Amino acid sequence: MRFLRAQFLTQRFNQPAKRWSSSATAGLQANLVRVTKNESPKALVANKDLIFGRTFSDHMITAEWSIEKGWDAPEIRPYDKICLDPSAVVFHYASECFEGMKAYKDKQGKIRLFRPDMNMARMNRSTARIALPQFDGDELLKLIGDYLKVDERWIPEGRGYSLYLRPTMIGTQESLGVAASNRAMLFVIGSPVGPYYPTGFSAISLKATTEYVRAWPRGTGDSKIGGNYAPGLLPQLMAAKKGYQQNLWLFGEQDQLTEVGAMNLFVLWKNEQGEVELATPPLDGSILPGVTRDSILSLARSWGEFKVSERKLTMPQLRDAVKENRVLEVFGAGTACIVTPVKTIEYMGEDLHIPLDPNDPTSQAGPITKRVNDTIMDIQYGEIEHPWSVVVN
Amino acid sequence: MRFLRAQFLTQRFNQPAKRWSSSATAGLQANLVRVTKNESPKALVANKDLIFGRTFSDHMITAEWSIEKGWDAPEIRPYDKICLDPSAVVFHYASECFEGMKAYKDKQGKIRLFRPDMNMARMNRSTARIALPQFDGDELLKLIGDYLKVDERWIPEGRGYSLYLRPTMIGTQESLGVAASNRAMLFVIGSPVGPYYPTGFSAISLKATTEYVRAWPRGTGDSKIGGNYAPGLLPQLMAAKKGYQQNLWLFGEQDQLTEVGAMNLFVLWKNEQGEVELATPPLDGSILPGVTRDSILSLARSWGEFKVSERKLTMPQLRDAVKENRVLEVFGAGTACIVTPVKTIEYMGEDLHIPLDPNDPTSQAGPITKRVNDTIMDIQYGEIEHPWSVVVN
Repeated sequence: MRFLRAQFLTQRFNQPAKRWSSSATAGLQANLVRVTKNESPKALVANKDLIFGRTFSDHMITAEWSIEKGWDAPEIRPYDKICLDPSAVVFHYASECFEGMKAYKDKQGKIRLFRPDMNMARMNRSTARIALPQFDGDELLKLIGDYLKVDERWIPEGRGYSLYLRPTMIGTQESLGVAASNRAMLFVIGSPVGPYYPTGFSAISLKATTEYVRAWPRGTGDSKIGGNYAPGLLPQLMAAKKGYQQNLWLFGEQDQLTEVGAMNLFVLWKNEQGEVELATPPLDGSILPGVTRDSILSLARSWGEFKVSERKLTMPQLRDAVKENRVLEVFGAGTACIVTPVKTIEYMGEDLHIPLDPNDPTSQAGPITKRVNDTIMDIQYGEIEHPWSVVVN
Repeated sequence: MRFLRAQFLTQRFNQPAKRWSSSATAGLQANLVRVTKNESPKALVANKDLIFGRTFSDHMITAEWSIEKGWDAPEIRPYDKICLDPSAVVFHYASECFEGMKAYKDKQGKIRLFRPDMNMARMNRSTARIALPQFDGDELLKLIGDYLKVDERWIPEGRGYSLYLRPTMIGTQESLGVAASNRAMLFVIGSPVGPYYPTGFSAISLKATTEYVRAWPRGTGDSKIGGNYAPGLLPQLMAAKKGYQQNLWLFGEQDQLTEVGAMNLFVLWKNEQGEVELATPPLDGSILPGVTRDSILSLARSWGEFKVSERKLTMPQLRDAVKENRVLEVFGAGTACIVTPVKTIEYMGEDLHIPLDPNDPTSQAGPITKRVNDTIMDIQYGEIEHPWSVVVN
């Protein structure tokens, strides 16, 4: 049998350059796109009936890559099943990464994206981490622009509504050898979604997970790869079983706070020095570098009203601060929700109660949580002109 | 929009029991199997032309699961593509796990499996870790037995040849919500393979990886889930680029040895007390509990000729031992190869040379490495009667 070392070694031992640059093979080129219209468009779903990630538009973007040729001409074609050999590496070795982003319709009817360059850059970092190919992010953004025009009717109107976009790359080589895939498929699908809180905020309760860790130094916690997500389902189920809505990920002997479910975490508090501080864990390699996270830090710094820190935060510190009434607000942050206020954190058998709005006992979100949310929404929907909001021409 | 918390919470908040036992829904039942013969069987590939994991037999086993109904009747049907919605969770959140096992043809023409109950038990542990459904391992083994009779001509004859079996489970729910999948597919494919070393052993060189860490306590390193594999490709490429054939995974401040590429690791040495000892890292949650690993420990213990330990081993300890000529043999162990002798380990810029056979300078494997390999093969092919070898009736 010619086993070679094809199994554990890369097949492209002698040509690593091809993987990391497209100099020898074709790059992704939006101007080569082939558009095939869906002849059986579906009926739209009413805004009130949308469930996150369940409804999909009529078309999808696909592009195929091979080690020999690079990127084939991309396609915009009817949304349809993906058919792969059962040996395709995506089914066995989690050769997969993705992005989450949204397309918004503004009051003038223009289509807008929010900091899409950050998604493209992060996706290329994710593909590099799992030995999938690189692509030109500007070209994928052009393709997404074309796609949004084809499926424009699927971008729901109204503040809080958007077409959630899911760029995904999967390894498609038909081989059980554990080696970098010599075939890949890039695809983008779109799902119309509504506001996370259609009738106002609803604060959530968290259970701090002590049985499992999400990520670690020199692991993959800062990449948006599939493998980071499946292991989080069991802690979620365990939190849910105890009546908490999400799990809070901790790390290390000091129980550092890292992420909330699949969101970044923010704490607004009076710190140990008595300063009002908005703090979030630093990008030490184990935290996902969220676009919303970065946007919140940038906005809060521009406000100049309180200290803004990327710093280590531990559960004992937070517990002490809760007990000393120094915690003002806690929230998760991500593309799907923008922000999610937190009202309770269970830690070592104790429920720590986080304040919401001190001036309004009926409110489910604190004033800074709300302000962050509203400001980002204003930018996303073009109500404040801001370079982060990119109009699709 | 009805976002609910369907996105991050499980949809089955109120029914976790259904997932972990099949009391309320149907279990996997081999006697319900529907067999559809492939009307276009392929030509066999000659033994000498087999490449690991590239050729597949004419049929596959499939079984579909849903949260509402449990396991549908399984099928043995023509090997064919798997078609899934682009939103299927396996493409996004690495909702996937697998096993590797082999079917052997003995000299009497009987089909044998090697400790298949261990694969079934480990697969159920893997599915539990990523919130995929449980199944009755004995039922899947019956199905595999039926499948092997249907595809018997694909089990190559001759010592070292076998039909590699790949049981796989994937989450197939069509939703972008990060939640336990309410749909799953179990499939098994078979690939005829030959001996790892058709013309005798060939020892490999390793590069110790210091840039990345494979697993962490309370992570997923002891589960055979897809997400453990894609992150290992880049360290492999980095090792290959420097001329080493695989990477050696380290952990912690003391640079503990953990695994070799996708294999368990064994060191035969004179330890600090001068005892001859066969050592392998302990199952502390970050090491895959390999079937071959367990078999080697058990055999070596039964021989009673040297100390056999599951213990922490660090690179500085190994480096000292190499320099003091205390290292006798080092090898990797796994289903694909049984054992792989190691001749060199690069660590911190230095090549540590590991002895092979002191009595034969042309040999590519040490005497214990060879003995382990030959004994396991004798059992696998029924040349020694042993309860680990299970005849498929």
